[in-house]
Amino acid sequence: MGADDGRTWLEHLSPAECWKLLSLHPVGRLGVLVDSAPEIYPVNHVVDGETIVFRTDPGSKLRGLDRRPSVCYETDGLNLDERTGWSVLVKGRAAEITEPHELRRARDLPLRFWALGEKPHWIRILPQEVTGRRIHRRPQEPTAP
Amino acid sequence: MGADDGRTWLEHLSPAECWKLLSLHPVGRLGVLVDSAPEIYPVNHVVDGETIVFRTDPGSKLRGLDRRPSVCYETDGLNLDERTGWSVLVKGRAAEITEPHELRRARDLPLRFWALGEKPHWIRILPQEVTGRRIHRRPQEPTAP
Repeated sequence: MGADDGRTWLEHLSPAECWKLLSLHPVGRLGVLVDSAPEIYPVNHVVDGETIVFRTDPGSKLRGLDRRPSVCYETDGLNLDERTGWSVLVKGRAAEITEPHELRRARDLPLRFWALGEKPHWIRILPQEVTGRRIHRRPQEPTAP
Repeated sequence: MGADDGRTWLEHLSPAECWKLLSLHPVGRLGVLVDSAPEIYPVNHVVDGETIVFRTDPGSKLRGLDRRPSVCYETDGLNLDERTGWSVLVKGRAAEITEPHELRRARDLPLRFWALGEKPHWIRILPQEVTGRRIHRRPQEPTAP
């Protein structure tokens, strides 16, 4: 599946490819509704089954998730020089992990995070839709002399 | 302004630094509300004064902008290996550029785009708030023998 204009080729990625990219690139961007407007926060994530898990501090991001759990999560790899790249978008619902056995399990996940802060809240995104695309660039044919 | 936990140093960026980063990195992610849920789309942008201009095709992104013009725009530079990085978040309102003299002006902007499609719609984001942060990592002191 895709689209082609001769110079550029847009490929739609399968869910399996999307999950592989999400696993290989443990940084993405959470889209959440805060005071009726979208906000985007970069976070470190880990893939757990077909869910996305991340940690957060108390604050507007967490309050937004509590009030409006419909979220999205995006990760991408964009090459500015070559003008090629891929992106994956997960749409779903976020829920804080609160059950003790689930928290123990989450703490064993290989989640690296770099930002400072205790980040005591564990959040899981349960996906409803996972889509991805990749933009390829065709090598230019040499022009006739 | 910032926060420091000894290992990591979080710096809040000034609006001038944010605009400079937005100018230097002409790719970002639009956060828009579609059917009451946030969605994130990578786009190529250009900075015009203290506004962000991009092009788009007809589709759910444009319908979302028409119905709920409160948007956000994020760009970042994240170094996975060093676990350092910066991000800029613009919150504002999106409006399609329709006035002929504004469209002529927009067409002269140095906007590169790589995705295929005609992208006949020009959108301007009028910012209400621009914030940014940068995460530094302190070099680890050598431990005593």
